Amino acid sequence: MAKITGKAVIAQGGGPTAVINQSLVGAVLQARKYACIENIYGALHGVRGIIDEEFLDLSQATTHNLEQVGMTPSSGMLSTRDKPDEEYCAKIFEVLKAHDVRYFYYCGGNDSADTCRIVNENAQKAGYELRVVHIPKTIDNDLRVTDHCPGFGSAGKFVSQAFAGINLDNRSIPGVYIGVVMGRDAGFLTATSIFAKKYPDDGPHLVYVPEKPFDEEKFITDVDRIYTEHGRCVVAVSEGVRNAEGEPIVSAFTKSQEKDAHGNVQLSGTGALGDALAALIKGKLSIKRVRCDTFGYLQRSFLGVASPIDAHEAREVGEKAVQFSVWENVDGSVAIRRTGDYSVEYFLTPLETVARHAKSMPDEFIDVENSSITTAFKNYARPIIGDLPQYDRISAPVVKKILNK
Amino acid sequence: MAKITGKAVIAQGGGPTAVINQSLVGAVLQARKYACIENIYGALHGVRGIIDEEFLDLSQATTHNLEQVGMTPSSGMLSTRDKPDEEYCAKIFEVLKAHDVRYFYYCGGNDSADTCRIVNENAQKAGYELRVVHIPKTIDNDLRVTDHCPGFGSAGKFVSQAFAGINLDNRSIPGVYIGVVMGRDAGFLTATSIFAKKYPDDGPHLVYVPEKPFDEEKFITDVDRIYTEHGRCVVAVSEGVRNAEGEPIVSAFTKSQEKDAHGNVQLSGTGALGDALAALIKGKLSIKRVRCDTFGYLQRSFLGVASPIDAHEAREVGEKAVQFSVWENVDGSVAIRRTGDYSVEYFLTPLETVARHAKSMPDEFIDVENSSITTAFKNYARPIIGDLPQYDRISAPVVKKILNK
Repeated sequence: MAKITGKAVIAQGGGPTAVINQSLVGAVLQARKYACIENIYGALHGVRGIIDEEFLDLSQATTHNLEQVGMTPSSGMLSTRDKPDEEYCAKIFEVLKAHDVRYFYYCGGNDSADTCRIVNENAQKAGYELRVVHIPKTIDNDLRVTDHCPGFGSAGKFVSQAFAGINLDNRSIPGVYIGVVMGRDAGFLTATSIFAKKYPDDGPHLVYVPEKPFDEEKFITDVDRIYTEHGRCVVAVSEGVRNAEGEPIVSAFTKSQEKDAHGNVQLSGTGALGDALAALIKGKLSIKRVRCDTFGYLQRSFLGVASPIDAHEAREVGEKAVQFSVWENVDGSVAIRRTGDYSVEYFLTPLETVARHAKSMPDEFIDVENSSITTAFKNYARPIIGDLPQYDRISAPVVKKILNK
Repeated sequence: MAKITGKAVIAQGGGPTAVINQSLVGAVLQARKYACIENIYGALHGVRGIIDEEFLDLSQATTHNLEQVGMTPSSGMLSTRDKPDEEYCAKIFEVLKAHDVRYFYYCGGNDSADTCRIVNENAQKAGYELRVVHIPKTIDNDLRVTDHCPGFGSAGKFVSQAFAGINLDNRSIPGVYIGVVMGRDAGFLTATSIFAKKYPDDGPHLVYVPEKPFDEEKFITDVDRIYTEHGRCVVAVSEGVRNAEGEPIVSAFTKSQEKDAHGNVQLSGTGALGDALAALIKGKLSIKRVRCDTFGYLQRSFLGVASPIDAHEAREVGEKAVQFSVWENVDGSVAIRRTGDYSVEYFLTPLETVARHAKSMPDEFIDVENSSITTAFKNYARPIIGDLPQYDRISAPVVKKILNK
């Protein structure tokens, strides 16, 4: 079929990742190769920049600049938390039409896929040929259909390296340590902490994810058991853990009721959950040294820790978005299919299969009884996270005591 | 003079660093070259392992194992928070003597230097020839005499890379962000956040260190000024900031009164200070999005982020400790003298010049008026921290508006 000629717009939405700009750059460099794409514009601050007509002409960025931006964490075109409704999407369509935009790429999570879906409906109703492709990204790894999401591997690498260091630190000065990891509904990112374990007694010894009810009594019993066995205990917990009634644990402990545009309680950017869990352990068990850290924003945008596989895949989903849109009159979300151990291919899935609803960890990844993560998860996630820096313990014989007091 | 023949003991004390094992390995590999050092023992858990006679014979560790341990963060021989008094030091001496130890190396901060000093006094009183050398390490960079401390550069690299990512994140989704950095009395580590600034409007925009009184009113005025100018604000603050009366700010806000063996209030491993400062901004200024992270233990033991210069220097201070002790009948603390830009030499300074008291940032490093850090500090710290990963902004022309609504 005939290619349609016009402009392209690309935007980035939601929380940034370490490799989201790889997708941006992959799409832009690919788009610049096609005569049917007259210009590729970048919208500043996501969909907000579209309705405000705030575009940069990325056809006129240098290749070196784009390559450098590709290696830069966090959304290079800046982001937004706006969640467009029907009216907002109509405005988006109006601007795209005014600028003779025929290709629209939106890089984000399931909310962004939903925006794509509505904008696409607007175009179809108006009989205006607009090709809309959603480019997946999220550190939460919670998009449906795709095997995994670009951005997850790099955040997982950060979390793994953080817990590896924490485990070594906790081993040298023992106590209980609780690390709070991002993840409102999905525990994938928290689960990556398991890659910090090298020696059998390494932490994290306990991992709690939002998919299973968090029970205070079991938590205390778990910590007590590990501490008795190892004289120390490292815990990884998702910020979104909730009780059997589905209420976030952080809400039960704190007065924090700040909600975002999506009606969600603020979980990140506060130490409340970690502090509350530490207080619980101090109160219930006679353990003096209890420490907690909330990894917060460090884990999604830290400069210099990206998984190479994740970076390459992020680049490729951007490229594929443009390829799919140019060669066929299709709309959809780019998804990753795992074809081997480890190899992937990319395909386009209908927008409605990705929009709105999120994915949780399957049961086979969670070891509920031991509050841990299974080997099945390790097999799934290891290739995406890639090699971690090695660490070693001293191996030397014990010296015989002389005084033996 | 004649070399003295006997065993050597090495131990690590206090909080770990990313490169403390480089010093351990530097000392061990060097000690294994000298016939006068019959064995080199490593004490488990610092001085605690000495009085408990818990030694590993590091003469019998493989070189590969030691080299791998050198690249491993956190104390490979494990650590202790014990602060030996006269009686404790007498016990240390008793054990060293029983094992015919003639060389004692202790890697740590100013408390460890003080332990060295007292053990040395015991040996002298007993007429027992014991050569005691303190090997400096601390992420706080607060040891006297030495130009800087091994461990500081790597922690500074982590803090710089963290703030670089945070700045990019904050730029993509604007608001106020407060990052709490380790540092009870010295602001060196917090000051390294300044290396995250590349473009003129980059954060951190405000930096608060313990050396200058933290004034709540000025803090609020500062944040308001930056937020008005840039529409966002990134703040770096030391955990130990205190008011004009010298009271830690965290104590004023929280009920946390846990104290360590040194009588210090717990500052790390809790999100209390950050949460309190965030609440202050939300309460006093009409800024909706205020987030805070407490970097906590991540900054001192993160796996995979070490400054190469820092790692090399840490290795060398360990080597030099052994060299000094073997060739001359001296006791002291290994110190670094900066001889060029950038070159160093190592020397031995008397134990009492390093023991007990700590060093603060000089006034010329602190820009009190602008709540920032000076170029003098950048010149001082940049070679130690080394190159950071690059990041770039998109450079492309703005597209003319059509609808212009």
